[in-house]
Amino acid sequence: MDLLFLGTGSGVPAKHRNLSSIVLKLLDERNSLWLFDCGESTQHQILNTTVKPRKIEKIFITHMHGDHIFGLPGLLSSRAFQGGETLLTIYGPPGIKQYVTMSLKLSQSHFRYPIRFVEFSEEGVIFEDDQFIVSIKKLKHGIPSYGFRVQEKDREGELMADALKDIGVPFGPLFGQLKQGKTVKLEDGREINGRDYIGPSQKGRVLTILGDTLKSQASVELANDTDVLVHESTFTSDDQKLATSYNHSTNVDAAMTAKEANAKKLLLTHVSARYLYADSKAMEREARTVFPETYMMNDFSEVSIPVRKEVGTDE
Amino acid sequence: MDLLFLGTGSGVPAKHRNLSSIVLKLLDERNSLWLFDCGESTQHQILNTTVKPRKIEKIFITHMHGDHIFGLPGLLSSRAFQGGETLLTIYGPPGIKQYVTMSLKLSQSHFRYPIRFVEFSEEGVIFEDDQFIVSIKKLKHGIPSYGFRVQEKDREGELMADALKDIGVPFGPLFGQLKQGKTVKLEDGREINGRDYIGPSQKGRVLTILGDTLKSQASVELANDTDVLVHESTFTSDDQKLATSYNHSTNVDAAMTAKEANAKKLLLTHVSARYLYADSKAMEREARTVFPETYMMNDFSEVSIPVRKEVGTDE
Ligand SMILES: [Zn+2]
Ligand SMILES: [Zn+2]
Repeated sequence: MDLLFLGTGSGVPAKHRNLSSIVLKLLDERNSLWLFDCGESTQHQILNTTVKPRKIEKIFITHMHGDHIFGLPGLLSSRAFQGGETLLTIYGPPGIKQYVTMSLKLSQSHFRYPIRFVEFSEEGVIFEDDQFIVSIKKLKHGIPSYGFRVQEKDREGELMADALKDIGVPFGPLFGQLKQGKTVKLEDGREINGRDYIGPSQKGRVLTILGDTLKSQASVELANDTDVLVHESTFTSDDQKLATSYNHSTNVDAAMTAKEANAKKLLLTHVSARYLYADSKAMEREARTVFPETYMMNDFSEVSIPVRKEVGTDE
Repeated sequence: MDLLFLGTGSGVPAKHRNLSSIVLKLLDERNSLWLFDCGESTQHQILNTTVKPRKIEKIFITHMHGDHIFGLPGLLSSRAFQGGETLLTIYGPPGIKQYVTMSLKLSQSHFRYPIRFVEFSEEGVIFEDDQFIVSIKKLKHGIPSYGFRVQEKDREGELMADALKDIGVPFGPLFGQLKQGKTVKLEDGREINGRDYIGPSQKGRVLTILGDTLKSQASVELANDTDVLVHESTFTSDDQKLATSYNHSTNVDAAMTAKEANAKKLLLTHVSARYLYADSKAMEREARTVFPETYMMNDFSEVSIPVRKEVGTDE
């Protein structure tokens, strides 16, 4: 579970920051990739990475501003060109379906893979399967803008089949009983306790990726106890007035949100093109005075979300 | 009058070739820029040039395929962001207006400058003023694809006012008579022949930019006697079958068209991402065996279209 930032800029592209897009790599977990937002030139940024467009399973769009969606038609074309044949699901605010289907229709783009759209307007769960629950809350950005909470489900410990084979337990119905934690008696008289051969359970990780927003209570609630919070940091705190007038956050707004949400780590992105590299390092330093575990993201920054400790051992 | 190639690739972007877009610099002629096609990431390519988006006066779209239009919404946003306030006119096939207006509406983009659309379906003149005539013909590409012939009008020689002042001709009504080529008598008795003080007339230049196409008679007719022909060269002649099946031209198709049209110079572009730099140099070499004045374009190639000789002196 790794986050790869393809674009960390805001509004218009800068040489050093492309427009918003983040890849959530779920290669170990489900051999697929999820994409959050898709600013123009996302398919170009991907050329500099190991990301395979045909592995993109879901695309989540936070809001309809152009710097978050204008790369979609091109990315979808790349996915087709590079052999994508599996279903792709696009989650986003109302309008996303019309934008994509009309762009593809007018450009006469025909793909071999189907696209499913999930347009949301109510808060709550938008996706759930055995592994993940994704839920949303509405933020404050002038137009509807959403945050995504990606909650990995806790995983039960797995039966250590290799270890059982090593001590001579024959593969078969006994394995089922051991997996349930029962004690079984082997033909040679040995007693084996299943609980000794079940690996540790694993607590699910939580990742929260917010769309553009002013500082808001919804952000704090959505990011509650999150392992990683991705928050926009369009302006520095010196430019608080500009931030407010454009419905954006400062680095300090983001840090305060992370602190109030009891997040473990804060990743800053969506930085205005007006700031140079040194400015963004200063943004990071200042945010750390409020929330020490703050990191400024750059294009192609990659952050791992490590496995949590066993259920019940870390609180 | 210079051509700047912002993107010379085809279909999907490659690291070394972005998608189609060409700037026609008319800075001396009308202090403005014309853009031909606008593939995704055109606004990004512009960041590496001196091109000012607010100076873009007209955008001509050859056809509706995604690699020629998906950069439009972003480029228009950049033009607004960078202070564009003057009218922009977009010429293109039916559908271009819907594509642009819908993309801007759904992304809640509001600009301070007006956009006018000219959707064409008939061949002929689509623009004319004192300086230029732009006319189109329909090519062969599966979907409607057009070529643009940009014809600069001949310019009459200008009255050499400084030279007249130097010899003591008083500014006033005499200038008008001299400009008409008349002979006038000054107060001191000298006779001045206007024809001696009119600079050389200048023959208008012709530039022909074709959209994607198979080799076609329409291309030859549109490019008749053109100074510069910009022609797609998606495939090498070795891949003629592929070219035909995808409704594209090879390097040799382009060279034959240039030869038949009696063009002065051929610029090859829209090269498939499958070919590397060495392949494209080989494409150029082979095309020169058919049409010697062939040049392979790369991203950021710039080509001047020099002033023609005086009317009537070069044929
Ligand atoms: Zn926004
Ligand atoms: Zn095409």
